[in-house]
Amino acid sequence: MIYITRKETFSAAHKLERTDWTEAHNMEVFGKCSNPNWHGHNYILHVTVKGEVNPETGFVINLSHVSEILKSKVLAKVDHKNLNMDVDFMLGKLPSTENLAISIWNEIKEDITALGGILHCIKIQETDKNFVEYYG
Amino acid sequence: MIYITRKETFSAAHKLERTDWTEAHNMEVFGKCSNPNWHGHNYILHVTVKGEVNPETGFVINLSHVSEILKSKVLAKVDHKNLNMDVDFMLGKLPSTENLAISIWNEIKEDITALGGILHCIKIQETDKNFVEYYG
Amino acid sequence: MIYITRKETFSAAHKLERTDWTEAHNMEVFGKCSNPNWHGHNYILHVTVKGEVNPETGFVINLSHVSEILKSKVLAKVDHKNLNMDVDFMLGKLPSTENLAISIWNEIKEDITALGGILHCIKIQETDKNFVEYYG
Amino acid sequence: MIYITRKETFSAAHKLERTDWTEAHNMEVFGKCSNPNWHGHNYILHVTVKGEVNPETGFVINLSHVSEILKSKVLAKVDHKNLNMDVDFMLGKLPSTENLAISIWNEIKEDITALGGILHCIKIQETDKNFVEYYG
Amino acid sequence: MIYITRKETFSAAHKLERTDWTEAHNMEVFGKCSNPNWHGHNYILHVTVKGEVNPETGFVINLSHVSEILKSKVLAKVDHKNLNMDVDFMLGKLPSTENLAISIWNEIKEDITALGGILHCIKIQETDKNFVEYYG
Amino acid sequence: MIYITRKETFSAAHKLERTDWTEAHNMEVFGKCSNPNWHGHNYILHVTVKGEVNPETGFVINLSHVSEILKSKVLAKVDHKNLNMDVDFMLGKLPSTENLAISIWNEIKEDITALGGILHCIKIQETDKNFVEYYG
Repeated sequence: MIYITRKETFSAAHKLERTDWTEAHNMEVFGKCSNPNWHGHNYILHVTVKGEVNPETGFVINLSHVSEILKSKVLAKVDHKNLNMDVDFMLGKLPSTENLAISIWNEIKEDITALGGILHCIKIQETDKNFVEYYG
Repeated sequence: MIYITRKETFSAAHKLERTDWTEAHNMEVFGKCSNPNWHGHNYILHVTVKGEVNPETGFVINLSHVSEILKSKVLAKVDHKNLNMDVDFMLGKLPSTENLAISIWNEIKEDITALGGILHCIKIQETDKNFVEYYG
Repeated sequence: MIYITRKETFSAAHKLERTDWTEAHNMEVFGKCSNPNWHGHNYILHVTVKGEVNPETGFVINLSHVSEILKSKVLAKVDHKNLNMDVDFMLGKLPSTENLAISIWNEIKEDITALGGILHCIKIQETDKNFVEYYG
Repeated sequence: MIYITRKETFSAAHKLERTDWTEAHNMEVFGKCSNPNWHGHNYILHVTVKGEVNPETGFVINLSHVSEILKSKVLAKVDHKNLNMDVDFMLGKLPSTENLAISIWNEIKEDITALGGILHCIKIQETDKNFVEYYG
Repeated sequence: MIYITRKETFSAAHKLERTDWTEAHNMEVFGKCSNPNWHGHNYILHVTVKGEVNPETGFVINLSHVSEILKSKVLAKVDHKNLNMDVDFMLGKLPSTENLAISIWNEIKEDITALGGILHCIKIQETDKNFVEYYG
Repeated sequence: MIYITRKETFSAAHKLERTDWTEAHNMEVFGKCSNPNWHGHNYILHVTVKGEVNPETGFVINLSHVSEILKSKVLAKVDHKNLNMDVDFMLGKLPSTENLAISIWNEIKEDITALGGILHCIKIQETDKNFVEYYG
């Protein structure tokens, strides 16, 4: 078993705000992340796939195929977008880093399986000081 | 003459959009940066001050004083904010990295002079691939 | 289960020296890290907490609460300090990166539990070339 | 149990090419990595060893000993070399990052055991966007 | 006047070897960089353009146009290639970082001028420890 | 004219303290940097040399010679040392980053000239947030 990781980046706006809460309660729980006029980040996404090495190619999986999946299923939807408003797989969810990682996992899991790999981890870094890892 | 630099970071939303242009023309010039629902970045700000070394302290300038100016005059206004809507010194300007660097220069120049230093450069990195430098 | 990590940094002096050993024996085992007049590092601390996502907030844990714990229980004690002389939770211990990671784990474990999270990992990077991970 | 990691770097040329395949088939599977005249990378190698902390020294293992093993068994063979042509432990293997990680594991495992540690992970980063981890 | 920089990366093989010198003399001057079977690097290229800010767009120059020039005139020729053998603008030159920077300057200068900007600097980083800057 | 830079790192202890000042006055001016029991940093040193490219070698200067000068004249004296107590060229000076940069300039200038290059800049990064540049 070996683990291979592809890194991609995207830039997006979001806010952490529950419309069923008062602005004061949003501020108490989410702090400056609840700014009504949005803020944004350069997100760093790491996708890790595990599997046996194919002796024909020396690869667990062809990373260029992983990259194509990420481009069509994730990056085209989130890069230079608003995570609360523009992204089909985030609609109705609070766009915390945790929820974003879980949603990207669900979005690409079957495609990775179809390539012959096993999706192992989605890691998302929101700022230089914070990141989340999800293993399914 | 010696040059000393302080780095700070902030996260903000913005878009590059002229309301006097059609959406198609905005897209032609600004590409995905014109997304109507915003996007955002983790900006990295470098502020460079030059001067003689004070033999009493070994300092050109006390960087903790520079940091206080940046906190009150810049970071409190831009961090977790919308550069088009929330920032007094950006109102009515296209929030390109170029305009942001020039505006921050104007915002802090006098305060740096009052500390006894000479503002030398404002550098703003918008993503890992792009940055701007302004020397006044 | 999801894992969330907070990164903090601190700058400290230390030396690896046993006073019950000769200087030559200290040098043999600890090399230049045993310099009698100290040396120091910019340490990078990563604290990882695991838990279920709270559907009310989208958070495993509010990272700003983790950050407050780290500030009062760790950073206030180690930043710009001497790890051998100034830090209550390191007194009488060799300040290797291993011992520092274990001690910080013990220092914050209960506070993380009280927040509703499970402390998963303390990672400390001493230089660009060395780091330690402790999982309890 | 605690985990300690040493990072080293090396620069090498390689290509992914099977001589029993046509150039077109190589291009189809390996893309630009099959360029007949080679290409190269600055590889980053992380070696993680696990063990108990020795109360005499505060160390799991003396990293300077790990570094010496890496220098003589790995870096002297791969740094500023051609991974397909110059490296005894890669001869006859496709120099994918996966195969390189497995081969370095096999090359140093016994030496790490002889030092009293347990080899835990070989991580190799080929570019800023790709890395592989192998746990034996 | 404001300065804007675009970063790109490429991976290439090369060697520093003069065929009119003995292998021993090559080794004396170029050290391990003269390995006959090549080695390689992940190069980082920074291209800086200066100019006035266009008040219509807030841009000195549209970086996506700079990026297109770099893709067609530089990256398509050097990425996953051999700098000694495969690159038209390096033929007959020693592929030192210095010569590479000067050659890329000459390769793109007119195209940058045609865009309305002034090419200011080519910076190439060969490894984490070495880089070169050329200002024409 | 072309500029070439070598990066080196070192780890050292220091404090900013004037013995002719009270502890309170030291704290007022130098803050936590005046901690009597020292603190320390992983310093990053960039040395930039300028010159014409030698057509024989493609080099401005052989960086391995620069590296040897840095090892014997700087790193052997400062790495894993105390900047206030152990370093001949810092004795009697406040070890601010400014004074350290100026002192390293003076320490290596003649040796760089003897190699046929012109010393252009000493840059020292003390933490991720602060750096100094000195051009003589």
